[in-house]
Amino acid sequence: MKSNAGPGEEARVRVDLGARSYDILIGPGRIAEAGAQIAQRLPDAQVAIITDETVAGLHLDTLGESLSAAGIKAVPIILPAGERTKSFEHLMQACDAVLDARLERGDAVVALGGGVIGDLTGFVAGIVRRGMHYVQVPTSLLAQVDSSVGGKTGINTGHGKNLVGVFHQPELVLADTDVLDTLSEREFRAGYAEVAKYGLIDRPEFFAWLEDNWREVFSGGAARVEAIATSCQAKADVVAADERESGHRALLNLGHTFGHALEAATGYDSRRLVHGEGVAIGVVLAHEFSARMNHASPDDARRVAEHLRAVGLPTSIHDIDGELPPPDILMEHIAQDKKVKRGKLTFILTRGIGQSFIADDVPQSEVLGFLKEKYTQ
Amino acid sequence: MKSNAGPGEEARVRVDLGARSYDILIGPGRIAEAGAQIAQRLPDAQVAIITDETVAGLHLDTLGESLSAAGIKAVPIILPAGERTKSFEHLMQACDAVLDARLERGDAVVALGGGVIGDLTGFVAGIVRRGMHYVQVPTSLLAQVDSSVGGKTGINTGHGKNLVGVFHQPELVLADTDVLDTLSEREFRAGYAEVAKYGLIDRPEFFAWLEDNWREVFSGGAARVEAIATSCQAKADVVAADERESGHRALLNLGHTFGHALEAATGYDSRRLVHGEGVAIGVVLAHEFSARMNHASPDDARRVAEHLRAVGLPTSIHDIDGELPPPDILMEHIAQDKKVKRGKLTFILTRGIGQSFIADDVPQSEVLGFLKEKYTQ
Ligand SMILES: NC(=O)c1ccc[n+]([C@@H]2O[C@H](COP(=O)([O-])OP(=O)(O)OC[C@H]3O[C@@H](n4cnc5c(N)ncnc54)[C@H](O)[C@@H]3O)[C@@H](O)[C@H]2O)c1
Ligand SMILES: NC(=O)c1ccc[n+]([C@@H]2O[C@H](COP(=O)([O-])OP(=O)(O)OC[C@H]3O[C@@H](n4cnc5c(N)ncnc54)[C@H](O)[C@@H]3O)[C@@H](O)[C@H]2O)c1
Ligand SMILES: [Zn+2]
Ligand SMILES: [Zn+2]
Repeated sequence: MKSNAGPGEEARVRVDLGARSYDILIGPGRIAEAGAQIAQRLPDAQVAIITDETVAGLHLDTLGESLSAAGIKAVPIILPAGERTKSFEHLMQACDAVLDARLERGDAVVALGGGVIGDLTGFVAGIVRRGMHYVQVPTSLLAQVDSSVGGKTGINTGHGKNLVGVFHQPELVLADTDVLDTLSEREFRAGYAEVAKYGLIDRPEFFAWLEDNWREVFSGGAARVEAIATSCQAKADVVAADERESGHRALLNLGHTFGHALEAATGYDSRRLVHGEGVAIGVVLAHEFSARMNHASPDDARRVAEHLRAVGLPTSIHDIDGELPPPDILMEHIAQDKKVKRGKLTFILTRGIGQSFIADDVPQSEVLGFLKEKYTQ
Repeated sequence: MKSNAGPGEEARVRVDLGARSYDILIGPGRIAEAGAQIAQRLPDAQVAIITDETVAGLHLDTLGESLSAAGIKAVPIILPAGERTKSFEHLMQACDAVLDARLERGDAVVALGGGVIGDLTGFVAGIVRRGMHYVQVPTSLLAQVDSSVGGKTGINTGHGKNLVGVFHQPELVLADTDVLDTLSEREFRAGYAEVAKYGLIDRPEFFAWLEDNWREVFSGGAARVEAIATSCQAKADVVAADERESGHRALLNLGHTFGHALEAATGYDSRRLVHGEGVAIGVVLAHEFSARMNHASPDDARRVAEHLRAVGLPTSIHDIDGELPPPDILMEHIAQDKKVKRGKLTFILTRGIGQSFIADDVPQSEVLGFLKEKYTQ
């Protein structure tokens, strides 16, 4: 994705969490500011930079130079790229490397990478010396608009995704919109599914703006900065209202129950489906299912599908390469994702574009019937 | 240690941490109440019990029966006894076992054991599903008066003790004073060093009471309950004032800088020195060093040493079996434990019994001179 934003196009989103509040600074060239921004917030801190091999090759030098110019000693810790890095094994390796670097509790751990690196690094920062400072430099669109906001960190285990982790808020997030220029088109689109999701949750005017401006978001510049800032603000608002995910925060899972089931059904094989693609299909399904349950008009589902299709995202289970398991197996994945209480599921449904809500009494039988229909359509 | 406490001798200490406040229930037979107490606080919760092989053989059945009588489903997870269990390897194993038991975020993890099991279990409860409920049933005196209060959890790494962990407060602590009857005399004495420490920090009347009543504390009954309750209250007061250890909480480390150095100098070989024994020698040294620095009278150091010696604890470096490394190596261990800033150390010193304070400008040279003197005395 080529960016053509000028230096004047920047934004700042404040995540309001009392004593744990922090800034997300968004715009072109933000990485070059990292040293100065960190030195200002954490004077005297040394840092360890955790990153992956792909991102290290592209952006580690820029970050390293910025830190060194600000007089900050930095030790890089480079891990393999990919979801498998979110493991106990790499957690242990990264904790050891941070201790090897002789960092103390007042020092900081910096995440330079996508959501995988962000989730792992936040967990490391949350547990080494029972909590060190943490700075995020998210480099994928998904990480900039989603995983870098909210303080959820963690790893996967044999039992499933993100099952072990902590809540640990960063001191600062630097979302450099230029680094997205080296991201693949497919990964950019996947992150865009989450951007659109914020419009669908409770910002109908943002969704409408995206319908008009998505090409500019993809090509870079002011629209990209604006889309990222609005997304961060949307997530920050929800997180501020419900930091530890006891209720309202569940709205962020719009499209994710179906999405996660599809990821599981495709064996988490990123050649077939990446998370954001699952979310794209998932939000369309959530709107269609809401229509089926008479909460929303089928026109809204069509409008959502049309926009995501225009962007190049998959919008139907038939867009997935290869065979899917039968509907009842998909239903099992859904039931595993959500706790089923007496045949009822909690689901994020909607009354229309930007009018999502938490429904905690969705009959499992209705979901299964809906899925069967979708398979034959 | 034989206990002869009657059922009327119980105590309750409230740890005041706002929304994270909880009760420590102290007295004989508390394990038998576990089921009812947990059911009352966490209705519908299932539990996993993490314990070690030694404690499982002695007290797991009692706990299991109490839970089952209250209708609580419980899965035991039994780990090897000993400090080595506080490792990444056992952390991973325990997390997996909790997930195998299909526990959800609203369920609880119960620690049944000494400080090793408590520290590991609290960490597990703090990270599985980003935080589950946590109940402590401490079974060593050290765990009842120290490690079970305050929410510090963690494991050791190749770099040192307790370097990785989280702050995670329990929902409830059940200190059953009867279970101490199966503890070895040596382990009981080691825990007693921490009890005496609370008197020395800021409760001179408690220290004087211990001088008069320590035999009853050892033999069980009302005095034991009282000593444990006063210790828990002392620690709870400090923790409530400084939950995340930013200042005042450092007073709890009275005797620990010297103690940790001695543990390191003896290679953490529990045949030579266990933690509480290091603390016993450490508090005596802290009083002697305070006298040398003209903060306190040498009489106080003599009084402390006399009491701990009467109890059967070591009080001098010469009480340790085998050779110790030379004073400058001990000094290096001290400097590693505490960050040295321009030749100055932070130390807990005292102006007399129950009058400890944080000194942050102790010259390293004075400490070394003091140690050299001790070696030749
Ligand atoms: N913590 C949260 O709240 C939260 C929210 C959503 C998702 N997540 C997690 O985020 C992860 C997915 O994040 P992701 O999609 O960023 O995955 P990722 O970190 O694996 O990044 C995707 C790929 O893009 C590469 N990449 C990243 N930035 C690049 C750049 N600027 N140029 C070129 N290549 C680049 C990476 O090396 C990787 O191969 C999942 O593990 C998911 O569970 C967490
Ligand atoms: N979290 C904190 O704030 C904190 C504070 C102080 C110490 N600690 C930690 O606590 C640990 C030391 O605790 P500990 O001394 O209880 O060690 P421990 O857990 O190893 O217990 C000592 C021994 O006594 C046995 N044991 C325990 N209860 C028994 C009983 N009722 N009957 C018979 N045997 C019993 C154990 O199996 C073990 O072999 C250290 O790892 C230390 O770092 C933590
Ligand atoms: Zn998502
Ligand atoms: Zn201690």
